[in-house]
Amino acid sequence: MIVVMKPGSSKEQLEHVQKLVREMGLKDHVIVGTERTVVACVGNDRFKDRSVLETVEGVEKVVPILAPYKMASKEVKKERSVVPMGASATIGGKKVGVIAGPCSVENKTQLLEVAHAVKEAGAIGLRGGAFKPRTNPYSFQGLAEEGLKLLALAREQTGLAVVTEVMAVEQVKLVCDYADVLQVGARNMQNFNLLNAVGETRKPVLLKRGMSATLEEFLLAAEYIMSRGNSQVMLCERGIRTYEEYVRNTLALAAVPELHRVSHLPVVVDPSQGTGKSHLVEPMCRAAVAAGADGLIIEVHNDPEHAMTDGAQSITPQIFKEMMRNVSRIAQAIDREV
Amino acid sequence: MIVVMKPGSSKEQLEHVQKLVREMGLKDHVIVGTERTVVACVGNDRFKDRSVLETVEGVEKVVPILAPYKMASKEVKKERSVVPMGASATIGGKKVGVIAGPCSVENKTQLLEVAHAVKEAGAIGLRGGAFKPRTNPYSFQGLAEEGLKLLALAREQTGLAVVTEVMAVEQVKLVCDYADVLQVGARNMQNFNLLNAVGETRKPVLLKRGMSATLEEFLLAAEYIMSRGNSQVMLCERGIRTYEEYVRNTLALAAVPELHRVSHLPVVVDPSQGTGKSHLVEPMCRAAVAAGADGLIIEVHNDPEHAMTDGAQSITPQIFKEMMRNVSRIAQAIDREV
Amino acid sequence: MIVVMKPGSSKEQLEHVQKLVREMGLKDHVIVGTERTVVACVGNDRFKDRSVLETVEGVEKVVPILAPYKMASKEVKKERSVVPMGASATIGGKKVGVIAGPCSVENKTQLLEVAHAVKEAGAIGLRGGAFKPRTNPYSFQGLAEEGLKLLALAREQTGLAVVTEVMAVEQVKLVCDYADVLQVGARNMQNFNLLNAVGETRKPVLLKRGMSATLEEFLLAAEYIMSRGNSQVMLCERGIRTYEEYVRNTLALAAVPELHRVSHLPVVVDPSQGTGKSHLVEPMCRAAVAAGADGLIIEVHNDPEHAMTDGAQSITPQIFKEMMRNVSRIAQAIDREV
Amino acid sequence: MIVVMKPGSSKEQLEHVQKLVREMGLKDHVIVGTERTVVACVGNDRFKDRSVLETVEGVEKVVPILAPYKMASKEVKKERSVVPMGASATIGGKKVGVIAGPCSVENKTQLLEVAHAVKEAGAIGLRGGAFKPRTNPYSFQGLAEEGLKLLALAREQTGLAVVTEVMAVEQVKLVCDYADVLQVGARNMQNFNLLNAVGETRKPVLLKRGMSATLEEFLLAAEYIMSRGNSQVMLCERGIRTYEEYVRNTLALAAVPELHRVSHLPVVVDPSQGTGKSHLVEPMCRAAVAAGADGLIIEVHNDPEHAMTDGAQSITPQIFKEMMRNVSRIAQAIDREV
Repeated sequence: MIVVMKPGSSKEQLEHVQKLVREMGLKDHVIVGTERTVVACVGNDRFKDRSVLETVEGVEKVVPILAPYKMASKEVKKERSVVPMGASATIGGKKVGVIAGPCSVENKTQLLEVAHAVKEAGAIGLRGGAFKPRTNPYSFQGLAEEGLKLLALAREQTGLAVVTEVMAVEQVKLVCDYADVLQVGARNMQNFNLLNAVGETRKPVLLKRGMSATLEEFLLAAEYIMSRGNSQVMLCERGIRTYEEYVRNTLALAAVPELHRVSHLPVVVDPSQGTGKSHLVEPMCRAAVAAGADGLIIEVHNDPEHAMTDGAQSITPQIFKEMMRNVSRIAQAIDREV
Repeated sequence: MIVVMKPGSSKEQLEHVQKLVREMGLKDHVIVGTERTVVACVGNDRFKDRSVLETVEGVEKVVPILAPYKMASKEVKKERSVVPMGASATIGGKKVGVIAGPCSVENKTQLLEVAHAVKEAGAIGLRGGAFKPRTNPYSFQGLAEEGLKLLALAREQTGLAVVTEVMAVEQVKLVCDYADVLQVGARNMQNFNLLNAVGETRKPVLLKRGMSATLEEFLLAAEYIMSRGNSQVMLCERGIRTYEEYVRNTLALAAVPELHRVSHLPVVVDPSQGTGKSHLVEPMCRAAVAAGADGLIIEVHNDPEHAMTDGAQSITPQIFKEMMRNVSRIAQAIDREV
Repeated sequence: MIVVMKPGSSKEQLEHVQKLVREMGLKDHVIVGTERTVVACVGNDRFKDRSVLETVEGVEKVVPILAPYKMASKEVKKERSVVPMGASATIGGKKVGVIAGPCSVENKTQLLEVAHAVKEAGAIGLRGGAFKPRTNPYSFQGLAEEGLKLLALAREQTGLAVVTEVMAVEQVKLVCDYADVLQVGARNMQNFNLLNAVGETRKPVLLKRGMSATLEEFLLAAEYIMSRGNSQVMLCERGIRTYEEYVRNTLALAAVPELHRVSHLPVVVDPSQGTGKSHLVEPMCRAAVAAGADGLIIEVHNDPEHAMTDGAQSITPQIFKEMMRNVSRIAQAIDREV
Repeated sequence: MIVVMKPGSSKEQLEHVQKLVREMGLKDHVIVGTERTVVACVGNDRFKDRSVLETVEGVEKVVPILAPYKMASKEVKKERSVVPMGASATIGGKKVGVIAGPCSVENKTQLLEVAHAVKEAGAIGLRGGAFKPRTNPYSFQGLAEEGLKLLALAREQTGLAVVTEVMAVEQVKLVCDYADVLQVGARNMQNFNLLNAVGETRKPVLLKRGMSATLEEFLLAAEYIMSRGNSQVMLCERGIRTYEEYVRNTLALAAVPELHRVSHLPVVVDPSQGTGKSHLVEPMCRAAVAAGADGLIIEVHNDPEHAMTDGAQSITPQIFKEMMRNVSRIAQAIDREV
C-alpha cells in the first residue's frame, strides 16, 4: 500500500506513520514529491488492515496495491480450473455447461417433467430449490428434505447433476447427502459462517455474487470457501442492483472476462435472476456465452403461470429447447460447444 | 394489484387473466380505457405472487397496490413503538438513545475504558462485536464467548445495555445469555434462517438495513422477525451502496422520516458504518438527530490507530464527548433530548 | 394512471381527487376494494403531470400506466426503423454496422491511418471527436473545425460515413456541414436545447444514453428529436454508472432486447465507453452482437500510449481487425452479418 | 500518480513505463517490492492523462495521488468563500441563506404571492424557472423572457435576490440581464460550453451536482467556471440517483462536510429535488442545516395541486413558514442563524 500524506503534514506525523508501518512488519520507503510526500510500504500487506492508517493525523489517504485475496487469484494458479458436476460432467472446459430447472421444487410431476425436458435439450445439471430464501415471510418457503428427495429421484432418472441451494449451516449436512453441487445464494454471499461450513465439505460450490458485491468482495467470499480446503468453486454472475427499473437486476456481463483475467475459477451466468424477465433470458444467454461464460443456470418451468416462485423469469421447456439451439450456434462461433 | 393489458391484446387473453385472478381468490374488475384495458384485482393480495401474471400472454405489466408487509406497518399500529434496551433504557420515546462502543471487543482494558467513557458522556447502550463478519477470511474474526463475557462485565460496571451482533443460528442461544439486544448485521438482513431464529427469542433486535436493500425489503426482514412473535425490532439505517467513492456507504437520511411514515418501529442511525470516515461521523450524527432519528449507534475506540477492525471510522472518547454535547443541542432544538 | 387512496381517506378527499382528474380531461372510475379505494383514470394521460395528484390529501400514490413517449414507441410503428449512414450505409437491417475510429481527431496522419485500417477491416462509419466534452477544463478540448475538415478528408479517401459529436446548439450548423451523423453525447442526453436543435436538422442522430438515464428518459430524449421532425435516431447504449469499480461504466446489454421490445429505433452499443478498458472491448463486442445490437461504435487508435484522450479504452487497428473476424462469426450465428 | 506493474512484468516493460513517465515531464522513482514493482511519478501530474499508462504492457493499474482540480480546492484557498446574492445578501457566512420560490414562474399573481410569503418568512433569495429543462418534450417549457420579467418585478417588490436557471449558451446574456444568480441545473453540470459561458460572466453561479456525478466531477465542473475567471460559485447538493424508489433522488448529506473539507466554496442543499416528496422536505431541511449547509433552496407553491411543474415536491407558503421556524432553531443549535 501507499500512504499519501497531506500537503503541509509535519515531520513528526511522517515519522509516526513510518513507525506504524514498521509495526505492521512492512518496510517503509518515503518519497518526497513536489506536491505530496508518500510512504510506499514494501512487503506482503495483503492481509493487513490499511484503514487504521487513514485515521492518523497528517495522512490524506491510503491506497491499496495488492488484491486482498490469494487462492482465488490468477497469481497462484495460471491455468483455468475445471470443476466437476456430479459423476461425469464438468464446468470450466471447452463445453459450456447448462444447468436448468425450476426455481422451486414443487412436486414430483413438475420436477420430473422439467428434468427430462432439459436433459433432452442438452442440460448437464438440474437446478431446483428445496430451501428457498424468500423476501416475504408469508411466501412459499420450499419443500425442504422432501424436495431434496425429489431432486435425487430426478437425477436417478436423467443422470443430471443436482445443483441446489443451502441457506444455513445446519442444512449443510442434509443437502450434501442429496446434492452434487451446493449453491450459495446472492443473499448469503457474505454469510461467512455458511461459507466456512461449505468450505469444509468436499462438494463443489456454485457461489452467487451478492446483489451489490464488488468483484473483490465476490472473490473474497470464494477465498473463504477455499481457505477451508474446498477449492471447487464456481463463480456465478447473477446481476447487480442498480437504478434500472425494467429489469430486476442489471446483468453485468463484463464481469465474465474480468473474472477470467484475475481468477482461475470458472464463471457461470444466471440470466433468469440476472434480468427477472422471461423475454430477456434468451438474448442474455446468447450474450453470456459470447462473452465467454463457462456455464449458464436457467429457470425453466412447465407452467410459469402457476409457478410457486419466480414465474416472471421462468421460460418453458419449449423455449428452453429453442434457446439451446441458438446458444449452441453462438458457442461454436467462439470454438466452444454447449 | 392492477394488471395492465397490452394494446391489441385479445378477448381470450383478457378472459384468461380474469380466470387466473379469480383462482387467486381475488375479484376482477375490468376497465376498458381508450389506450389500455386494465384489470383491477379487488381483495387482499398482499401475500400473492403477482409476478406469475407478468408471464401471461397479452399482459404488459402488473402494478402492486398494497405494501407486502403488515405487522411492521403503520396500518396495524398507529402509535410509535418503544423498544426496551436492558433493564432501564428504551429506544423510541422523546429521548434519543445513543449506543456506543468499539467495533470489536479486543480485550478487557480496551472495552472497560471505552465503556466508562461513553457512559459518562451519556450513552445508554454499549456496542461491541464478539462475532465479527469480516469480508476477508484472513482478518480478525472476534473473541467469541470471551468477548461476550467482557461485555457482560462492562454492563455490570457501567449499567449500559449490551448490544452485540449474532451472525448465525447456532450462536443465538449463546448471545442471548449475555446480550440485552441482538444485532443483525447488514450482510445478514436477508439471512432468513437467522431472522426466524431471533424472532423466536424474546430479546429486542437491532436490525440493520442491507447494503442495497429497499425500504420494502428492510420492512419485510422486520416482518420475518415479528411474524415469529418478537415485535421488539429497531430499524437501523447504516448507509447504502452507491457509486460514491469518498464514503464507504451513502447515508440515506430521508429513510428516517419515510420509515416513520410507513412503520411504527423506532429508527436508529449508524453514521460510523454509514460513512466509513471518522471525520464525517459528528456532522452526520447531528443531521440524523435533526432528521428525527430515535437513536444513534457509534463506533468509539480509545486507540483507533491500533484498532483491530474499522479504525478508519472510529472516533475517540474525547471526540465522542464533544459530539454528545453538540447532538444534545440539536435534540433540544426539536424538543427531544439525548 | 391509477390514483391509490390511503386507507381511511374521506369521501370528500375522494371526491376532490375525482374533480381534479376530470379537470385534466380524463374520466374517473372509482373501485372500492377491501383494502384500498383506487381511482382509475380513463383517457390519454400520456402527457399529463401525474405528480400533482401525489400532493393531494388522502392520496397514497399515483401509478402510471402509459409510457410517456409516443413517436419512439412500437405502438405507433411496428416495423424496425432503418437509419441511413451517409451515402450508402445503413444501421438497423440485417447487417450489423460497425463505426470505428479514434476518440479524438488529433492530426491528419493519425486519422487517415486509422480510417484506412478500420475501413479495410469492415467498418462502415468513422468516428472521431472534433469537439470534445472533457471532465477536466485543463484537458485537450479537440481541434474544432480543423478536426471536422480532416474527417471530411478521411471520408473522401475511404468512403466511410462520418459520425462526430456536436456539443452545443451553436455548433450544429457547422457540424452538419461536415458530418453524416450527428452524435449527441451521454453528458448531453438531457441538454434539451441541443436535442431540439438536432431535431430541426435532417441529419441522422446517434443519441447516447445518459450516464444514469432510465430507458424511459432515454426514449424521451429521442422523442425530443423526433417531435421536431427528425425521426432518424439511433439509440446508443454506452454503459451506466453503478458502484462497480473495475470498469468505467457497467454495460447493460439487456437494454438491447428491451429497447427492441418497446421501440422501433435501431440500437448501437459502445463497448469502449461501456467498459473503459481495452481488454474488455472485444468480449463485449461479441456479447453485444449476440444480444441483438444493430451496430457497434468502437474507439481505435494507432498509438494508444500517446492518445490525447481515452487511451485506456482504445484498441489498436490490429486488435480491431481480429475483433471484426470474431464478431463476424457471432453475427452469422444469429443469421446476421457484419 | 503511482504505476503498479504486473507480477512477472519484464525489465523492458518497466523501462518503457519509465520512458513514458519522463516524456510526461515527471520524475520516475522505482520501488521494487516483494510482491510488486511500482513506479512513483514525482511532479505535478494533476492535469496529465494517466489513463494512457494503463494500456501499456506490463502495467497492472495506475493510481492517482493528486485531485485533478485546483482553484476549487482548499489547497489554494484555506478560508471559506462567501458568495454575494444580489445587492445585500450573501451565502457562505454565519447566516444560512434560504432561497425559495416556485419550480416554474407561471404567472404574475402566483409569483408575487409566493415571493411575498417567502420573504416574510425569512428567505433571502427567490427561485423560479423561466427556462425549464423538462424530461418530456410535451411538458410545459417555461415562460422564457416573460418569466424573467416577472422575477425582476418580484425582486423590485420584495428585495429578494433572483436565482434562475440558464439552460443554454444563447440564453446567458438574456438571463444575466434579469437574474442575480445564474443556476446551472443538474442535467447541465457537464454541459461544458455552458459552464464556460457562465464562467465568462461576472454573475454568481449556483451549480447543481449532476444526477450521478462524483464529488470530483462536481468540483471539476466548478473548476470550468472558475478557470474562466468567475470564482463566485456555490455548490448545490440535490440528491443522486440510486436504486432507492421511495424518493426521486437520494439526498447524500455527507457531501456537505466532505465538500467543506476539500473545497472553500459554499454548499447549498436542495431538499425538494433531493427527495421529490413534499413530506420529506422539512426533515431534510433540518438535517441539511445540522450537517453544516450554508444555504437551502426550496420549492414553494401556493397551489401545489395545480402547479405546472414539480407539484409533488412543492410545499405551501404556510408549511414553509413553519419549516423556517424549525430550521432556525437547528441553526442556533450549531451557532448559526437563518
